[in-house]
Amino acid sequence: MKTRIGIVGYGNLGRGVEMAIAQNPDMELAGVFTRRDPSSVKIATEGVQVYPLSEAGKKKGEIDVMILCGGSATDLPVQTPELARDFNVIDSFDTHARIPEHFKNVDDACQEGGTVGIISVGWDPGLFSLNRIYAESILPNGKTYTFWGKGVSQGHSDAIRRVKGVKMGIQYTVPVEKAVEAVRACKNPELTTREKHTRECYVVAEEGADKAVIEAEIKNMPNYFSDYDTTVTFMDEESFQKEHQAMPHGGFVIRTGKTGNGETTDQLIEYSLKLGSNPEFTSSVLVAYARAAHRLACEGVKGCKTVFDIAPAYLSPMSGEEIRKNLL
Amino acid sequence: MKTRIGIVGYGNLGRGVEMAIAQNPDMELAGVFTRRDPSSVKIATEGVQVYPLSEAGKKKGEIDVMILCGGSATDLPVQTPELARDFNVIDSFDTHARIPEHFKNVDDACQEGGTVGIISVGWDPGLFSLNRIYAESILPNGKTYTFWGKGVSQGHSDAIRRVKGVKMGIQYTVPVEKAVEAVRACKNPELTTREKHTRECYVVAEEGADKAVIEAEIKNMPNYFSDYDTTVTFMDEESFQKEHQAMPHGGFVIRTGKTGNGETTDQLIEYSLKLGSNPEFTSSVLVAYARAAHRLACEGVKGCKTVFDIAPAYLSPMSGEEIRKNLL
Repeated sequence: MKTRIGIVGYGNLGRGVEMAIAQNPDMELAGVFTRRDPSSVKIATEGVQVYPLSEAGKKKGEIDVMILCGGSATDLPVQTPELARDFNVIDSFDTHARIPEHFKNVDDACQEGGTVGIISVGWDPGLFSLNRIYAESILPNGKTYTFWGKGVSQGHSDAIRRVKGVKMGIQYTVPVEKAVEAVRACKNPELTTREKHTRECYVVAEEGADKAVIEAEIKNMPNYFSDYDTTVTFMDEESFQKEHQAMPHGGFVIRTGKTGNGETTDQLIEYSLKLGSNPEFTSSVLVAYARAAHRLACEGVKGCKTVFDIAPAYLSPMSGEEIRKNLL
Repeated sequence: MKTRIGIVGYGNLGRGVEMAIAQNPDMELAGVFTRRDPSSVKIATEGVQVYPLSEAGKKKGEIDVMILCGGSATDLPVQTPELARDFNVIDSFDTHARIPEHFKNVDDACQEGGTVGIISVGWDPGLFSLNRIYAESILPNGKTYTFWGKGVSQGHSDAIRRVKGVKMGIQYTVPVEKAVEAVRACKNPELTTREKHTRECYVVAEEGADKAVIEAEIKNMPNYFSDYDTTVTFMDEESFQKEHQAMPHGGFVIRTGKTGNGETTDQLIEYSLKLGSNPEFTSSVLVAYARAAHRLACEGVKGCKTVFDIAPAYLSPMSGEEIRKNLL
């Protein structure tokens, strides 16, 4: 019997989850849940219904895992604990400072409902976190560096679009090659925010807007841009539409460490992602962890987990014998 | 209380484990076990004794985890199951075809002894295996490539040294850059053995030996060299001693996959290691998994495991709260 997945929220991530389910023969989409009018949401999978989120509870027992595809700011802090009372849940909560609070809320709900919740699943937090824990546990004397990009930052793109006179805008976070090379050379550099990443902005200005003012306002924006070397490139709407629709991303987690007598031997562990589409990749991670959540629940496990708590074997559709034979 | 580690076999790997223990404040070396005359084995750690392996059983209850540092050919198939009856054990068994049999033997012993055994721990098998299972579970439509090197292959170096007229010899496995680049470019190439790696041999010939004969014999050796582009470089003993004492290694696991509507989006996951010392790094992995074995045993778990079965949190000395705060 296939693992029955529910998707909560049908934006880029929700659509990505739907596509990822189609790539996994042991999974099936059992329903999409939305706060919008269900009749206004057209999904790709035939024969699957869209339901109002408010009525999700009625599907208890018919869905093995709910994958929550809303935002971390306001959706997930409410939705994940709420749904965890009735369902196993997976989310990609990424507001780092609020993880302890979110973990506790989801854990309380899971304990009450006898369900499994896995939070903060994706690539960062998620796969990058895994690489940090593996690398730091193996090389205790060392230093870990995370670089992001080249890729679109949704938060920074939103910030650009709030600037007066900006019609369209997108922001790419770009790792500074020189910094990455120094890290890879085991030089253990101390890097400032400015030295690690640059920010490239592409903007379509409203007609008649003062481009110099827009550029200055973006570059001096505190928190978002003022601590970085930022470039602002203006372009026409047609070029923007053509060149900036994909959502690529990626990055590196690099740990360098010393081992041996006198701790003089250099060791380097690097994990890198080069993603053609950030939401499609994040969705693929969510679906693999949904498999794990369902299996753990079938074993009687309950409570809130993160990627740290999930043995890798739970992610694979293969049996223990098969993974030892094919992947070890 | 610290985790008490026993080292079985005091060669390069055993010495590496001893150094790795010194880097982990929650671990301590409790004894070294050898088949040699214990009085002939001088270890680095003060106040720790060397015991005959045959009397290891007497230390039951005084050692939390035995780390087995022998070879896969003849040592580990016997030693790991034998010691698993009295101790939690970790080994780096890497004879791939015999893993199912070894797993069963260790599992039987662990079930009998109520202990935990983790086999095939290191970087390949080990960390590379982990990256294969994560990447394949996340990108089911894709292709995984493993490249090794540049690094010393012990087996191939031994093969060179068995050739008549060879006084000293070492072999480096080197990934073919063009092949790695084609994989990174998501071209999904079909690669033959010859296209993936070259083999570089450095040889000191016995006085009067015919170098042309040695070179031909190496290059045509079946299984080891005949399927590869192999170079043989002769050098004098002094240069050899100076340039070929380190044991560097490393490699890459790369998975490329397609996601999205029509499966047209390229996604790339790459894991790479650049190791100044292969045995010191492998030892560091063994010690992190020893921490996991001890914790699992304390929770009442028993049986044989591989890296696939161990949740990453078990490897870290930090608590769940700490890892969520610092690494997620």
